[in-house]
Amino acid sequence: MIKVGIVGGTGYTGVELLRILANHPDVKVDVITSRSEDGIKVADMFPNLRGHYDLAFTVPDVERLASCDVVFFATPHGVAMRMAPELVALGVRVIDLGADFRIKDIDLWSRWYGMEHTAAALVEQAVYGLPEVNREQIRSAQMIACPGCYPTAAQLGFLPLIENDLVDTRRLVADCKSGVSGAGRGASVGALLCETSESMKAYGVAGHRHLPEIKQGLSVAAGRSVGLTFVPHLTPMIRGIHATLYSVLKDPNDGLQALFESRYADEPFVDVMPPGSHPETRSVKGANICRISVFRPQDDDTVVVLSVIDNLVKGAAGQAVQNMNIMFGLDERAGLNQVGLMP
Amino acid sequence: MIKVGIVGGTGYTGVELLRILANHPDVKVDVITSRSEDGIKVADMFPNLRGHYDLAFTVPDVERLASCDVVFFATPHGVAMRMAPELVALGVRVIDLGADFRIKDIDLWSRWYGMEHTAAALVEQAVYGLPEVNREQIRSAQMIACPGCYPTAAQLGFLPLIENDLVDTRRLVADCKSGVSGAGRGASVGALLCETSESMKAYGVAGHRHLPEIKQGLSVAAGRSVGLTFVPHLTPMIRGIHATLYSVLKDPNDGLQALFESRYADEPFVDVMPPGSHPETRSVKGANICRISVFRPQDDDTVVVLSVIDNLVKGAAGQAVQNMNIMFGLDERAGLNQVGLMP
Amino acid sequence: MIKVGIVGGTGYTGVELLRILANHPDVKVDVITSRSEDGIKVADMFPNLRGHYDLAFTVPDVERLASCDVVFFATPHGVAMRMAPELVALGVRVIDLGADFRIKDIDLWSRWYGMEHTAAALVEQAVYGLPEVNREQIRSAQMIACPGCYPTAAQLGFLPLIENDLVDTRRLVADCKSGVSGAGRGASVGALLCETSESMKAYGVAGHRHLPEIKQGLSVAAGRSVGLTFVPHLTPMIRGIHATLYSVLKDPNDGLQALFESRYADEPFVDVMPPGSHPETRSVKGANICRISVFRPQDDDTVVVLSVIDNLVKGAAGQAVQNMNIMFGLDERAGLNQVGLMP
Amino acid sequence: MIKVGIVGGTGYTGVELLRILANHPDVKVDVITSRSEDGIKVADMFPNLRGHYDLAFTVPDVERLASCDVVFFATPHGVAMRMAPELVALGVRVIDLGADFRIKDIDLWSRWYGMEHTAAALVEQAVYGLPEVNREQIRSAQMIACPGCYPTAAQLGFLPLIENDLVDTRRLVADCKSGVSGAGRGASVGALLCETSESMKAYGVAGHRHLPEIKQGLSVAAGRSVGLTFVPHLTPMIRGIHATLYSVLKDPNDGLQALFESRYADEPFVDVMPPGSHPETRSVKGANICRISVFRPQDDDTVVVLSVIDNLVKGAAGQAVQNMNIMFGLDERAGLNQVGLMP
Repeated sequence: MIKVGIVGGTGYTGVELLRILANHPDVKVDVITSRSEDGIKVADMFPNLRGHYDLAFTVPDVERLASCDVVFFATPHGVAMRMAPELVALGVRVIDLGADFRIKDIDLWSRWYGMEHTAAALVEQAVYGLPEVNREQIRSAQMIACPGCYPTAAQLGFLPLIENDLVDTRRLVADCKSGVSGAGRGASVGALLCETSESMKAYGVAGHRHLPEIKQGLSVAAGRSVGLTFVPHLTPMIRGIHATLYSVLKDPNDGLQALFESRYADEPFVDVMPPGSHPETRSVKGANICRISVFRPQDDDTVVVLSVIDNLVKGAAGQAVQNMNIMFGLDERAGLNQVGLMP
Repeated sequence: MIKVGIVGGTGYTGVELLRILANHPDVKVDVITSRSEDGIKVADMFPNLRGHYDLAFTVPDVERLASCDVVFFATPHGVAMRMAPELVALGVRVIDLGADFRIKDIDLWSRWYGMEHTAAALVEQAVYGLPEVNREQIRSAQMIACPGCYPTAAQLGFLPLIENDLVDTRRLVADCKSGVSGAGRGASVGALLCETSESMKAYGVAGHRHLPEIKQGLSVAAGRSVGLTFVPHLTPMIRGIHATLYSVLKDPNDGLQALFESRYADEPFVDVMPPGSHPETRSVKGANICRISVFRPQDDDTVVVLSVIDNLVKGAAGQAVQNMNIMFGLDERAGLNQVGLMP
Repeated sequence: MIKVGIVGGTGYTGVELLRILANHPDVKVDVITSRSEDGIKVADMFPNLRGHYDLAFTVPDVERLASCDVVFFATPHGVAMRMAPELVALGVRVIDLGADFRIKDIDLWSRWYGMEHTAAALVEQAVYGLPEVNREQIRSAQMIACPGCYPTAAQLGFLPLIENDLVDTRRLVADCKSGVSGAGRGASVGALLCETSESMKAYGVAGHRHLPEIKQGLSVAAGRSVGLTFVPHLTPMIRGIHATLYSVLKDPNDGLQALFESRYADEPFVDVMPPGSHPETRSVKGANICRISVFRPQDDDTVVVLSVIDNLVKGAAGQAVQNMNIMFGLDERAGLNQVGLMP
Repeated sequence: MIKVGIVGGTGYTGVELLRILANHPDVKVDVITSRSEDGIKVADMFPNLRGHYDLAFTVPDVERLASCDVVFFATPHGVAMRMAPELVALGVRVIDLGADFRIKDIDLWSRWYGMEHTAAALVEQAVYGLPEVNREQIRSAQMIACPGCYPTAAQLGFLPLIENDLVDTRRLVADCKSGVSGAGRGASVGALLCETSESMKAYGVAGHRHLPEIKQGLSVAAGRSVGLTFVPHLTPMIRGIHATLYSVLKDPNDGLQALFESRYADEPFVDVMPPGSHPETRSVKGANICRISVFRPQDDDTVVVLSVIDNLVKGAAGQAVQNMNIMFGLDERAGLNQVGLMP
């Protein structure tokens, strides 16, 4: 059994990791840390875990974490960069669900995240954990930077078009809608039911931290810098991201459906829907899957891609487990066979 | 008191008309028709109206309706075009909340709505009831075609840019999110709580009936045919439309905020928000107002306009009453002073 | 115009007072206080008020408040009892939406609210602002203690039975369901959308602060101390309270419907529904009304009363305005003509 | 592998059976019937099943179903009673998720369900599939009547009290709250998002079909006929039942917590929460578990039991699979290890 440690298990990505790993055949969660909840059983904090875990939170301790084969960081940015280097040096494999290792340009990271980066060397070494792009590097990686939720949905939707140089990459548009769990489990007025239910709003239109991440990924795929307008929206639901992606074809193209199907034919967790389908976020609720449709409305030159994920699963904890499976040579699907909860 | 008739009062726009008119100082609802609910009191069907109306539904009858000063049609398409011509001929003023008189090109209408049009002459005569564009014609109009909900939000957001020829009109994008009440009160699996709650999806990406209507309005404003990609989304809430509008500036422009403020300075029901604001649909819940923000993210050449309305108010019943107020020389705000219900 | 002051206008009952008073014909809100938001315009904090108020928050100041004819306290318990005595002494009439003056037994209050009471004399003088019971005393009152939300729904439902000594008052049961706005606008994990949406739970089963308040009101009506089991539940919606009330008839009785209709025949804001009706909280959303149904299932001796209100309106701000109207000899309905927002 | 047939797979209990069985190690779904969807793949109808099933709906055919080891009926009442007798005669084991075989008194059944019963003999033979009561009989049963959703939550909550004769059984109260999925997947105005969201209402107060079922189960436990007031409520969420159960102790009793813990100590799918806990329905979302708390508020003689389930899992499909596991000598937990989806 692979011994797993989790740093920062009291947020939504932490409890989601626990939910997924509870039924993983090859792992055992050995350590879970929380400074504030030291001594509390995870099942007392999250009653859905009653009967599945006897584990209690402990204060973060590198020595104890170093006894694990792999450590997940389910922490806000700024935490993993302080602890990961020592763990990596001790031979532990690290998977960061946060943002510390996603952006290769350290200065760019510092500008968007408002702090100095303290582990630049490890950023260079880290592999961006989008298996559909970097599966081979993930196998041998010691440090994984799990993609953000919006970046996962947006990149998987745009990649087939951009890798094949089919669209004008100067003015891509990603209009993205997220459930409220993306805002985390912290107490904030803005995430109260009474502030978010029965309402829709955009936020961060002037600039959102996932913008440079998406641009980085798409620029790598394009082989040149891309231009992107990214508008996230807060949607009155718990889970789910719906990315609606707009780009303009360079040349007429009737083969987009086939292109998408072929691009993802061997991917266990990307599902290209039949022509004309509109994927619903509820079809992926609780499941590690990205469902995609591609349209060319009115047979014109604008391509519309619809891409949906569960932000806590394929957008966070599920993708992290998928990375772990690849890193440890397990079946990539192990522990990730959940069917979306519908209705 | 102005005598009001309502045809088709059992749907959501019908009950919303009743809610708004209940507190209108200058009108009295005299007739409300429903073939299926003949004899039933409106307050028995819609208990929120208890204490406000003693009125009962009757079967539609032109003679009886002809005794009214104004008749609202809150009916599916195809109904108003059969009854309105006779009422208009009898001198009654007619306000259609449905789609029959919105599209000037009869063939285009027939293609999108899948039926022959039986009142082409009246289409020509009808005024498109968007007061922010056609206030003067509305004053003397006998037949008003109330704009659709998406078209209201999209046009009010795009108009300042297009009227001033600031953006490339070949590839406009309107990514629109609507609450489920837009689907009406008919029994359908697709609008069940269990099918729509906790989920987000696009629909009609290949083509939606509001596409030609928005294009018609924007083309008039532009003085030439515009190109538009319109993607509506079903959002898990009852009321509200959030339009996120993308266009590309022809030339650098730092004056968009001032332009929008100036365009709508005298409009009682369009509210241009301060720079950097993100309007929420809940701020307009139950209120006849369109709130708009304009952004130029990263100071680039893509303009993002956010435009929110309550689809049942400024997108339907409220706008209809606003038209009535203008037609009858009343205070345009009469009966429309509701404050949005927040939270 | 009556000059109104509001202390503590940043919570949900505060913004709801502003919404209701915006369309009240006889009042002007002159002062609104908030220590934390000093200088901020109310419409910047609550965009639904844009166009309705130019007012800004100021720090609480007794002198300034003393220039008002009436001051509403929309504050947590413990605030009004410190400021109200001075205002009352200066001749200002005070309406407390909080809990400080509801419980006549000071020791009981202290036990449930966990603090000493600093204005015991004013408690004695205060009138419990349930107009359906105390209308005459309210007319001349200088200090009003507005009932809590659960107590309003529960008392209005039980009163006809208890005033007429029809049921066993030793074991009343009030199973009550509330929307999340009852938890207020403070940042707390427990009121996040992700914690409350798509879920139902009871809370405070061992004891809730509204228990002694309901018992006090019902005991006054009964002329003896009553026994009550009160179980509040958190319901995944913003507004609304649904009280389901159980009691056992002393003697067979077929006249309950008539009894309820007669008890509330002259009440402008209590609506006894037709026999067999099930009132929905949405029928009172945004409206100052309590809708009630009474059943005797299987013609047995257990009476079931269903009583619904909007917790922020008839359960708080609307009832406060109703009290003000009575106190100042205005039409009791002034400013309270809103129709419930349905759908 | 056990060969499974499902009759009526297009409703919510049908798709939930498919979701659960997709990860069951010992079964294969071989036949699924739907008259209206003949030839349609289940994964085309329910996209959450894409990648998990290649199966298509076929018209119901007894011969084909007879090739299965077990057939589940996920049908409205009236269907199973027509097909089950033949299947049972052919040696197939049948599990009915509907109501046809739940009530032993045929006349009573006919009165509540409004039709003649056509399989009275099989009713007598059928075992009521509540494993916590009838595990031994289930092992050898050929015909299982799965309990209704409300009856499961209510009985599991009341049983320890009633089996031990601790409470007055003449006047039990079950105040129950259900998510909208309990209303099924049929198109109906009453289950639209716009009619059920943001609202709470009771229904069926005068009489609901689950009343005789709960009374039957509790009467068996009591050894005498019990009196019950049952009030179901429609709650604005998809899944979940919260039963709040009231009864009056015959004698003072401080041992209720221990009693409940002991009663369910060996039950894999009943979880007695620690004293003072309030179980949330979201903690069981998607999971086959009933969570229960017991209170004696104010140390008085009224007992309050809180009992929560997912109506589609422990209240329907999960319990059906639990029955199947018992019938076929499998691990009772097989396929039922899902952790509740929280948030």
